[in-house]
Amino acid sequence: MDNFTFYAPTYFAFGKDAENETGKLVKRFGGSKVLIHFGGGSVIRSGLMDRVKASLDAESISYVELGGVMPNPRSGLVYEGIELCKKENVDFVLAVGGGSTIDSAKAIAAGAVYDGDFWDYYEGKPVEKALPVGTILTIAAAGSEGSPDSVITKEEGMFKRGASGEAYRPKFSILNPALTQTLPPYQTACGVTDIMAHLYERYQTNTKDVEVTDRMIEALLLTMIHEAPRVMEDPNNYEARANIMWAGMMAHNNSCGVGRTQDWASHDIEHELSAMYDCAHGAGLAVVMPAVFTYNMKHDVMRYAKVAERVWGCKMDEACPENTAKAGIEAFRNFLCSIGMPKNFEELGAKEEDIEHMAHSACYGNGNTGYVGGFVPLGQKDVEAIYRLML
Amino acid sequence: MDNFTFYAPTYFAFGKDAENETGKLVKRFGGSKVLIHFGGGSVIRSGLMDRVKASLDAESISYVELGGVMPNPRSGLVYEGIELCKKENVDFVLAVGGGSTIDSAKAIAAGAVYDGDFWDYYEGKPVEKALPVGTILTIAAAGSEGSPDSVITKEEGMFKRGASGEAYRPKFSILNPALTQTLPPYQTACGVTDIMAHLYERYQTNTKDVEVTDRMIEALLLTMIHEAPRVMEDPNNYEARANIMWAGMMAHNNSCGVGRTQDWASHDIEHELSAMYDCAHGAGLAVVMPAVFTYNMKHDVMRYAKVAERVWGCKMDEACPENTAKAGIEAFRNFLCSIGMPKNFEELGAKEEDIEHMAHSACYGNGNTGYVGGFVPLGQKDVEAIYRLML
Repeated sequence: MDNFTFYAPTYFAFGKDAENETGKLVKRFGGSKVLIHFGGGSVIRSGLMDRVKASLDAESISYVELGGVMPNPRSGLVYEGIELCKKENVDFVLAVGGGSTIDSAKAIAAGAVYDGDFWDYYEGKPVEKALPVGTILTIAAAGSEGSPDSVITKEEGMFKRGASGEAYRPKFSILNPALTQTLPPYQTACGVTDIMAHLYERYQTNTKDVEVTDRMIEALLLTMIHEAPRVMEDPNNYEARANIMWAGMMAHNNSCGVGRTQDWASHDIEHELSAMYDCAHGAGLAVVMPAVFTYNMKHDVMRYAKVAERVWGCKMDEACPENTAKAGIEAFRNFLCSIGMPKNFEELGAKEEDIEHMAHSACYGNGNTGYVGGFVPLGQKDVEAIYRLML
Repeated sequence: MDNFTFYAPTYFAFGKDAENETGKLVKRFGGSKVLIHFGGGSVIRSGLMDRVKASLDAESISYVELGGVMPNPRSGLVYEGIELCKKENVDFVLAVGGGSTIDSAKAIAAGAVYDGDFWDYYEGKPVEKALPVGTILTIAAAGSEGSPDSVITKEEGMFKRGASGEAYRPKFSILNPALTQTLPPYQTACGVTDIMAHLYERYQTNTKDVEVTDRMIEALLLTMIHEAPRVMEDPNNYEARANIMWAGMMAHNNSCGVGRTQDWASHDIEHELSAMYDCAHGAGLAVVMPAVFTYNMKHDVMRYAKVAERVWGCKMDEACPENTAKAGIEAFRNFLCSIGMPKNFEELGAKEEDIEHMAHSACYGNGNTGYVGGFVPLGQKDVEAIYRLML
């Protein structure tokens, strides 16, 4: 196991009606003037926003609002939020929504206390200072509610880039599974896929002897396999939503990823797809992951065979573990199809002629210096070949 | 899943030489005058104390020292530590040792900023204020390095009682698996047993539909089953020690215990044994747990059958799952024996004639009002019967 540090000081309030604690939690973590950041009107129509405001009012906390966050959140709105925070002397950013809203809120929080361009952080500058952020999660997917990460798309050029830093860990996150019950099935499935991707990215490691984190990752994958069909069958299944929601946080707060190299090639390769076609991140990952795993399989057949056996219940083929590894990838692909995820470029709306451009952008953008992936370093030609596996 | 809150803001520095960060971490978390609290001379003889002091010196942090913590740490030394902290204006308590030392340090930290008797906290008063605590862990076992808990034995009457509160979460914990390599095999095995007990206590729940935490608990149990024999075979196996150390923290920071009722009958029943005979907590648990599980099995046969199948690899007997449940308990008992743990009163040095007294103390002490256990409420007669299963 590699040396590591782990620090995840986010306060979680989990369960029914947890959003009624918003005001008390903002106060506890030092907020007195809040920016409420959100996406579309669904949080208003559902009545959630009224409850949040009532909770803030009860603690005499004032607020301004900024809606309009889109999936694959854009830099334009971030700049707007930063201006608003500075003008209104906001001291706390409250995200009400899914990963996109939270990521946008984090970017605003950093930019509001930085004299330069917030995009610097998305070009590699470590995030060391930001306004405190709280979240009220409405989609189990990105794990941003417990992570130090944020991904933003710059509108000029549609570059999708990530930033990370301790200051990006939310001070609190409110996780009420009931708030996710109104999500359309497709978005629910995209969330499930994203959570499983966060687990697979960590599973693909070159660090030996990391049984504890292997087992934790497998545990969370098994949970998703058990719970996702239940929630697809009955979107109002609170219990299944609850299991998925906690698994989604645990999958990405990195307690199961410490002390080991991780991959993240699938994310880098997917980011190009969602930046180019504005497809859902989870849907893109569903197409990308089986292709990446298939391409990388020979690098460590036993690792893919192990997850196939332990998670997908494939019988270990001792004579040819490659068969087990392949069966596991196929089982994962079938699972993703079964919850309504696309399986190729066509279903995703992606185009073969963009492959070269996307492969180049993946390998040379976001601070990458010619390759992606921590498991197998993949150069532009490799990434092109992987995209072709998705045709 | 039940509603819950989860807040675990401990900073972990994990790996080789991590203790050299001590000074920087004390400074980061606001310490300028430290009480170094420790047990016997092993931390001095090993050179660890010199490295810790050098690290504090490098940051110009002054310190006083208090050694002498015993297993099942006593109130007498806690009072001494509190006096010392008040006299020397200590503002940070640093525990260098295992769970006993950390628990003692937490009690000192609470008492140092409280006008009353620190024992009030161990009679049920919530711990809301304490000096900040940091830890340098030398035994993977108690999980106190990441938990809000502390257990102290009051010398008058030898009552062993627990206290809990947010202020008891360490600000930082330094986890260097190499520091545990010098532990004698028996103590290592006691630590393994304690970690597994923290998992089983959480597994025994009446809350339905908690797959995510079930799976996480099973993952950590599987890790222990894999790693413990490796470390018993070769005490210098750093990798096995590292896996156990992270599993030990995860087993008790409660991320795998949230949103569900838990049991803790085994701990309450064991505490009487170690208070009475001063046996190692882990050794006591090894004797207690199979008896408790056997006694409670019929309350929820499928829960014990599930852990038997998923963790111990027992084949599910669909016609009679009780057979599977029994096989799982037997497998656990055999595993504990295989790492050198005792299996009955005699091997533990306990006496039949004390059963009635211990059962009464378990059920009526520590704020208990006639029973122990959150899974099956066990009254004095039940606890007596359970002790008799250990004869």
